[in-house]
Amino acid sequence: MSAYLDNSATTKVCPQAAEKAAFMMTECFGNPSSLHSLGFAAERELTAARASVATLLKADPAYVTFTSGGTEANNLAILGAANAKKRRGHHVVTTAIEHPSVLEAFARLEADGFEVTRVLPQNDGTIDPRDLLAACRPDTILVSAMAVNNETGAIFSWDAVAPAVRRKSPLATLHCDCVQAAGKCALSFDKMGVDLCSVSGHKLHAPKGVGALFMKKGTRLIPPAALGGGQEKGVRSGTENMPAIAAFGEAVKALPAPAEQAKRYEALRAFLLSELADLDDVVVHTPRNAVSYITHLSLLGRKSETLVHALAEQEVFVSGGSACAKGKKSHVLEAMGLPAAEIDSSLRISFSHETTEDDIRAFCNALRTARDTLAHV
Amino acid sequence: MSAYLDNSATTKVCPQAAEKAAFMMTECFGNPSSLHSLGFAAERELTAARASVATLLKADPAYVTFTSGGTEANNLAILGAANAKKRRGHHVVTTAIEHPSVLEAFARLEADGFEVTRVLPQNDGTIDPRDLLAACRPDTILVSAMAVNNETGAIFSWDAVAPAVRRKSPLATLHCDCVQAAGKCALSFDKMGVDLCSVSGHKLHAPKGVGALFMKKGTRLIPPAALGGGQEKGVRSGTENMPAIAAFGEAVKALPAPAEQAKRYEALRAFLLSELADLDDVVVHTPRNAVSYITHLSLLGRKSETLVHALAEQEVFVSGGSACAKGKKSHVLEAMGLPAAEIDSSLRISFSHETTEDDIRAFCNALRTARDTLAHV
Repeated sequence: MSAYLDNSATTKVCPQAAEKAAFMMTECFGNPSSLHSLGFAAERELTAARASVATLLKADPAYVTFTSGGTEANNLAILGAANAKKRRGHHVVTTAIEHPSVLEAFARLEADGFEVTRVLPQNDGTIDPRDLLAACRPDTILVSAMAVNNETGAIFSWDAVAPAVRRKSPLATLHCDCVQAAGKCALSFDKMGVDLCSVSGHKLHAPKGVGALFMKKGTRLIPPAALGGGQEKGVRSGTENMPAIAAFGEAVKALPAPAEQAKRYEALRAFLLSELADLDDVVVHTPRNAVSYITHLSLLGRKSETLVHALAEQEVFVSGGSACAKGKKSHVLEAMGLPAAEIDSSLRISFSHETTEDDIRAFCNALRTARDTLAHV
Repeated sequence: MSAYLDNSATTKVCPQAAEKAAFMMTECFGNPSSLHSLGFAAERELTAARASVATLLKADPAYVTFTSGGTEANNLAILGAANAKKRRGHHVVTTAIEHPSVLEAFARLEADGFEVTRVLPQNDGTIDPRDLLAACRPDTILVSAMAVNNETGAIFSWDAVAPAVRRKSPLATLHCDCVQAAGKCALSFDKMGVDLCSVSGHKLHAPKGVGALFMKKGTRLIPPAALGGGQEKGVRSGTENMPAIAAFGEAVKALPAPAEQAKRYEALRAFLLSELADLDDVVVHTPRNAVSYITHLSLLGRKSETLVHALAEQEVFVSGGSACAKGKKSHVLEAMGLPAAEIDSSLRISFSHETTEDDIRAFCNALRTARDTLAHV
């Protein structure tokens, strides 16, 4: 029986979303910009999907701009906000444990002459809000920090620190990458107190190819690309990806409530840890403040990639670090200062609300088999 | 019986493509960057789709970079190529009749300090290759002209002029927006002699949300966005939109041969013109050199938008100008110098290989009804 435990890489599309996508491809296939009834029908689906996706952050649907995914949303937020404010300051702040779509956007800003401060995590993988605040200056124009880290599950809460950041850096646009949090955690755009939030569809059982940027009213962006027909209020031109957008709306509606999911994840996580308790060469990395649906561990003495293959042969699917790194050494674990032996043997197990105890059992059995058969390195 | 004659705005997804998308959403749903068998299965689909899409331009699959659509492909080509060469020259050339995703990218370049020359069309809507050549200079670093105009169907053939442009502007990267040509016309990337070509999936019965940029080996681009995990050789980061990409591959495979399609379009077009021949207030705009699958006409004395609605009420779907303009006055028709009376009353009828004589008949009947019932303006 196969066990898919790589839900932070991507998820299976839920039936409601897949059906909606099929309907949009073959029946309601008009261009939302067309001024006839087929176009209007597509536009109504766009409006409905926007309302549904807005509930992810309990936000006004008018805040939602659909993008081609989390990467585009993060790029648009960071490059767009920095360029809109470049005449007012050249200092920008982020953390060393962000997703590549954030880190590479900041690298581009650096190449363009901005001064970038990258806040380091604590040894356990969490970003201390005081460290973020300390990095902020009066001339800071942009601050970006992710809600949930994609490798360790470490939580960063903007709620507590946003007001202090605004006092210290009144010019700054605040951005939160919520890709790994949205749909699983109870998030509120207003409570977070930021200007911009990125989310991705395919992490929450919607199809790949769609994401959204939440923008507080009045936030100014100069989009780095997606220039053209003026769709999405001119922030993101291009014919709307209606099958994926409408499916995104359905997938959000199909999600269990965050509190219900959290209970499930905690139970699954406790079960996972108890099943592994007797293995003294397994090190679980547990940030002080972390979600229960991402577990990061090392099986000392075995190589991460070899482990992933050995598990996949037993139909158990997990990551060694994040999918995006694709074999490269994790910048997150390095920033945490983990010993090389733990970095090289690391695995990420990530749940969705469909994960069962049987999946965990399958993983633990496969891990034991791999442990017994794979040679030490 | 409804007649969809707005195929240049968007098309219905073909069954083969829709089935493939469903398969990718719910079965082969891995992340192509994941290093386990579910990821590898997705990666194989990516490779197969690339090979299929490459046949659109008889090109090497290695030339194909998947994007979120035609707009992203055009932006990436124009902004990416200009930024890669900005130290070598500041002059760029395009035409006045391009799609907004091209025109807006050039407007951005202009705002960034580039000098833009926009070649005007002849009165019939065609761009004279000699005019394009005349606009090129030794310091020109980018030349972009579309293969088939989305409003009039006017053809611009790079084949004849590319070598002369290269002689006059040896620094220039050459780009062709093939969005309205690909899948319908017989195109060859090599024969066109350009460096970059953009195509879009949803114009040829693939889903919305996917397109491709063809890049000749050695072409340098600095992507304006899509920075992150390094997918698509680092030119277009972000988890690949596998349902749409794999469906794109299937849609291309399902297309009839261009020669076969051309025969069909010519017959349909001749039928359309003969059916309208007795209406002396219908003016058909026929560029000297144009495709048969786009017909642009004016019904003098009636407003374009009102006509589109009146036709839609009879289940006949066409555009007034292009879908992208969404009610704005067409920049293409203005550049052609058409009289205001013809611009304001214009309609675009666009075929796909599924269009039938019955569709044309339904359109002509609906047009006559609208003509008889709508008041003159």
